[in-house]
Amino acid sequence: MKASDYRLQTTQLLAGFASVGQEQDGGVTRLLYDAAWQKAQQAVASTMREAGLSVSIDTVGNVFGRLEGTDEAASTVMTGSHIDTVRSGGHYDGALGVAAGIAALARLKKTYGQPRRTLEVAAFCEEEGSRFPLAYWGSGNVTGSKDFTGSLDAKDPEGVSLRAAMLAAGYDPEEHGLSKRTDIGVFAELHIEQGEVLEREGTQIGIVDAIFGQRRYFVEIEGRSGHAGTTPMTIRADALAAGAEMIGWLRQAAIAAGDGLVATVGKLDVQPNLANVIPGKVRLSLDIRHRNETVIAAFCKLTLDSFSTIAERYGTSITMECWLAEQPSPMNEVLQAEISRVCDALGYSHRRMSSGAGHDAGLFAASCRTAMIFVPSRAGISHSPLEYTPPEDMERGTQVLTALLYALAYGEDER
Amino acid sequence: MKASDYRLQTTQLLAGFASVGQEQDGGVTRLLYDAAWQKAQQAVASTMREAGLSVSIDTVGNVFGRLEGTDEAASTVMTGSHIDTVRSGGHYDGALGVAAGIAALARLKKTYGQPRRTLEVAAFCEEEGSRFPLAYWGSGNVTGSKDFTGSLDAKDPEGVSLRAAMLAAGYDPEEHGLSKRTDIGVFAELHIEQGEVLEREGTQIGIVDAIFGQRRYFVEIEGRSGHAGTTPMTIRADALAAGAEMIGWLRQAAIAAGDGLVATVGKLDVQPNLANVIPGKVRLSLDIRHRNETVIAAFCKLTLDSFSTIAERYGTSITMECWLAEQPSPMNEVLQAEISRVCDALGYSHRRMSSGAGHDAGLFAASCRTAMIFVPSRAGISHSPLEYTPPEDMERGTQVLTALLYALAYGEDER
Repeated sequence: MKASDYRLQTTQLLAGFASVGQEQDGGVTRLLYDAAWQKAQQAVASTMREAGLSVSIDTVGNVFGRLEGTDEAASTVMTGSHIDTVRSGGHYDGALGVAAGIAALARLKKTYGQPRRTLEVAAFCEEEGSRFPLAYWGSGNVTGSKDFTGSLDAKDPEGVSLRAAMLAAGYDPEEHGLSKRTDIGVFAELHIEQGEVLEREGTQIGIVDAIFGQRRYFVEIEGRSGHAGTTPMTIRADALAAGAEMIGWLRQAAIAAGDGLVATVGKLDVQPNLANVIPGKVRLSLDIRHRNETVIAAFCKLTLDSFSTIAERYGTSITMECWLAEQPSPMNEVLQAEISRVCDALGYSHRRMSSGAGHDAGLFAASCRTAMIFVPSRAGISHSPLEYTPPEDMERGTQVLTALLYALAYGEDER
Repeated sequence: MKASDYRLQTTQLLAGFASVGQEQDGGVTRLLYDAAWQKAQQAVASTMREAGLSVSIDTVGNVFGRLEGTDEAASTVMTGSHIDTVRSGGHYDGALGVAAGIAALARLKKTYGQPRRTLEVAAFCEEEGSRFPLAYWGSGNVTGSKDFTGSLDAKDPEGVSLRAAMLAAGYDPEEHGLSKRTDIGVFAELHIEQGEVLEREGTQIGIVDAIFGQRRYFVEIEGRSGHAGTTPMTIRADALAAGAEMIGWLRQAAIAAGDGLVATVGKLDVQPNLANVIPGKVRLSLDIRHRNETVIAAFCKLTLDSFSTIAERYGTSITMECWLAEQPSPMNEVLQAEISRVCDALGYSHRRMSSGAGHDAGLFAASCRTAMIFVPSRAGISHSPLEYTPPEDMERGTQVLTALLYALAYGEDER
């Protein structure tokens, strides 16, 4: 297999997908079941067909391209990612894993013919949670690992329910459970890093050891509003001053914890938010992530205790509500070792790293052997029109994925 | 003079004014030259006439009620405040000083007849800066102490210029300079404290020694946005974390400075303000006030230096722009002593205090003897429908003002 024969293919496929849902700012918007999304799923299906794969679309709109194996008893080796995007997102997040998966299967078919184990590339319908207040509607239904009770009633910002959106796109909402699969033995996902570790180090391939677990909280601090000129410093109950000390504490504590733990206050809203009024109320977001659930739990407890102590010291009251708790997903160690071997064979530099972002692969980790391959993201930027990964990096990722799938589907591997 | 004869009068006048520009939430909105404001000025003029005062309206819409003195050579003793409000403001801010001034002049005329020195009560057209990006349009034109170059082109949020608003209300914008007065020897203003010092202490009357000077800044911190999960703590340039440390530093430094200095970050806006994105940019307001200009200048310098150091430590850049600088206005010491004497005579507890808020009196301080009398504000709340001062406190304030004006206009005092 000569890499140069196929280099154009991966970048071309990606460019094809990126042309669907284009925004004026250069970003793409494909929201679950909307018109751009429907067009993208059709483009994916056509591309898969042109690549010589047999195509099927399941009851929620996941698209699969299949290369049937000779060994009917063997479980399926699946790759892929998602085709939906955030609003005005980048070209690479999700779509790269779909494009590279199609390219990999096409290369394998062309070079080696029919595999022993069945190979599939999936384009999951939804991962971003950018239209409805739910996420992983694609891989969550395929793995059956997520509780979607009540999800059909979830509404988008225009008030359209998921149920209504499915009907409008030609899907029967009551049949979403039928998309569950039990034949998958391996899931391997190629994705952009969405961080700047690889780029800063000059490392070509990231081998993911775990997808971070995360907890997210709403924190609301209630103090006492007042006139900025007439209220002495010593009798204030300034909700923003209290929040500021919490933010400072959080950062120091996360740095002290080390070991890759990240803690972020990304959203902060002040009331009444006027230059000459002492803030009476502050609402802030809290996002804590690590690869180990015990570490997350301990750090969250420490944070909540510390925030309460700070709130009290400022004469403010505080409420903290956990609204999202995702367990970490360890990746399969044998597959990690296999990817290392593949990288060494191809001469690509590589490192183990955790994924701070959630991915479809995380949904598979509990039910089958799962792997993730990262390629660099320029400046770590994602969820933005500025998202960029050089063609060489996409090609290297595609080659590593292809070699991994070869080893799994054409070799003797089977567990 | 029996206080009980007049108690109803002050509260009644105030209730009359509060009925003009009523909002559903109980607040009042009277913006310079709008319909509610025009109605309020007419109500003030009628009330003054009913109180036996001769009424005039100047070229910007300030209304004056006059009690002519016998001594034509003596300068005028003026009281009053403003009749405009913030959006959905309280009933007391400004309007109390107008109502009490009318009540005081009516009481003096009824009890003592014509004064030696001319007495006037003013209802200034604008003090709050709530329609156009300028303030003190009333007292600033009367004193000629404010530079209004270019102000006629200032626009309200709907894009209407001050010039157009004046024309629509029947005023000639080019004649605003004609409202300047040179005959005023004393200006004394009764106002709610807009803070909670008097209420907390149980003190009945505040005698203002100075109106705070203030400086306000826009501060913009630019860091680097990034994914909250994939960006290690140690390579972040989190604009909000930097801002949080600045807020904490500011509070500690203001407490350490003591002597009544107040420093506030009341407004803070984060970009992109998403729970899972490291803040790339933060814009915050900075408001610093004290009675002494040298102290303000030194504290501002210390703050800007410290903010720069903090910004650098976080790998962020910072810009700071001063957009408002008002000098402190010391109140006349002889008048402060006279108000003390009056309070003692009436048996009302009193204390010296500075005004952290700006007032019309501040505009007069440079050109004539100026005094301010404060009455308590419940919980220090102002610029809100919840603004409240009990009738007894309004009456005490009116009595102190009346006695002060008596001493100045009927006695031998004249400088």
